[in-house]
Amino acid sequence: MKKFLGIDVGGGSVKGTVISKTGKIYFQSSIKTNPIWTNEEFLENIKNFIFEIKKNTTFEKIGIGTPGPIDLDSGVILKSANLPNLKNVNLISFLKEIFPIPIYFNNDSNVASLGEYFFGIDSKKKSLFVFTLGTGLGGGFIFNGKLYNGIKGNGMEVGHMSVIPNGAICGCGQKGCAESYFSTSGFLNRYFEATNIKLQNAKEFFDLVILNDKDAKEVLELGVETFSECIRAIIYILNPEKIVFLGGISKSYSLFGKSLEEKVRSKIFPVLSENLIFAVGEDFAGSLGSAALCFEGEDD
Amino acid sequence: MKKFLGIDVGGGSVKGTVISKTGKIYFQSSIKTNPIWTNEEFLENIKNFIFEIKKNTTFEKIGIGTPGPIDLDSGVILKSANLPNLKNVNLISFLKEIFPIPIYFNNDSNVASLGEYFFGIDSKKKSLFVFTLGTGLGGGFIFNGKLYNGIKGNGMEVGHMSVIPNGAICGCGQKGCAESYFSTSGFLNRYFEATNIKLQNAKEFFDLVILNDKDAKEVLELGVETFSECIRAIIYILNPEKIVFLGGISKSYSLFGKSLEEKVRSKIFPVLSENLIFAVGEDFAGSLGSAALCFEGEDD
Repeated sequence: MKKFLGIDVGGGSVKGTVISKTGKIYFQSSIKTNPIWTNEEFLENIKNFIFEIKKNTTFEKIGIGTPGPIDLDSGVILKSANLPNLKNVNLISFLKEIFPIPIYFNNDSNVASLGEYFFGIDSKKKSLFVFTLGTGLGGGFIFNGKLYNGIKGNGMEVGHMSVIPNGAICGCGQKGCAESYFSTSGFLNRYFEATNIKLQNAKEFFDLVILNDKDAKEVLELGVETFSECIRAIIYILNPEKIVFLGGISKSYSLFGKSLEEKVRSKIFPVLSENLIFAVGEDFAGSLGSAALCFEGEDD
Repeated sequence: MKKFLGIDVGGGSVKGTVISKTGKIYFQSSIKTNPIWTNEEFLENIKNFIFEIKKNTTFEKIGIGTPGPIDLDSGVILKSANLPNLKNVNLISFLKEIFPIPIYFNNDSNVASLGEYFFGIDSKKKSLFVFTLGTGLGGGFIFNGKLYNGIKGNGMEVGHMSVIPNGAICGCGQKGCAESYFSTSGFLNRYFEATNIKLQNAKEFFDLVILNDKDAKEVLELGVETFSECIRAIIYILNPEKIVFLGGISKSYSLFGKSLEEKVRSKIFPVLSENLIFAVGEDFAGSLGSAALCFEGEDD
């Protein structure tokens, strides 16, 4: 059976998995990401990581997912919020010179979505939308088994849709983005505005929600309200069959999911609601989705 | 050369065009729509209209576009704002019993978008988004030469995305929809709120804008601001190469287009803006787009 290497570049670590199309895992490994990596250091570390994996097993193709924005055609990471020293990294041409096998590339939300499509429970739908709820708010869309990429690989940047005109400033420089209200960074920033208290992560925030902290509950409520408008837009535009939530925040789905689903369903045409399923996905390594970039044209 | 009949059902009239894939028009005709038509009267009139056309020319397939929401799979018009007595019209099964040839179906915005793709100037893009600016605010998306339909033919209902949370009530029953701010109905309703004056149509509204009427200018300004957020969402989600504006309101593009384009470009990542073209489309009959529904699988 053919083996494919999937690499997932995240803010905290770079993960690698060698896997078959049927989901058999042959090898897994990871290295820590260093947030101050320059272009050269980043490329050097990725190269060495792949060589290490190669010592352990073979693979016929490589798929790689990275934070964006990216330029899909030229295989370039334009920049990355979590690796701020990276700029216009010629990742794919660099790797192709070293590893003379097919190499596929996409952004992190897209590869996570592809992982959910191929390996999630009952997610092989004609039309699947995946929200990645982490530091930021990302999305990916699989239609008829294919990722929707937009012209340069930057489709489905749902976090930067406006939900409150002239609302809170987002990391992207614009105002009122959905990500400013429903993401780890959004929750922490809104909570800081309300209380002057800096929380460290989503867990701290949701722990306060569980403790009935008034401000945390208000921040979450505003987040759910605005995110429901973001999902409403996605439904009116794409009319998906299934919406799946992935990422760290989705672990706290019991604290907001029911309210979120009810709000969304109350805001859309009945015909759109009747045909729509919501689900929380399992925690697949993004590297499985990256490997799935290699599946196109491969037999089942 | 093969001939195709395209039928466009609008609020004012039903239009029919017999055309080849290369755009050669063999016959055109229309009948007035009666807004109080029941299901039976509607079907009878469409049937007779097609028989009249058949007396004049031949055709191998029929494409038909109607207001929505529709159920694409079953060929049903669920309801229509402009033909309020229609409900769950089994249009396609009715026509298939009478005309034993292939019959294709879609909603009016989608067929207008397909018409722009096939017959518009320089619109055969990999990724084309079309806004239909009329009584309502509609949209259509053509990707790799194919209409994006969503699961039941109700994708791209952009008019019912929220642009102002808890904003103005829309005809759909929801609040803050883009259509409530940027469409003929939206302009007239917002102008009535401000002045208690009922305008009759978009021309009257834009004439007031030209005359520097303060309220009309404010309504347009709010409309442009909110529509720019709607377009921003479309760009972040779909990352299209070209956005085209069609419909009655697009005739007044000189009164708002520059401001609209500038607002949109100021709100999106540079990489998305650099690859994006805006254009105003020509006035194609929707019936050409309906005929284009028949083109799939046909040689050029």
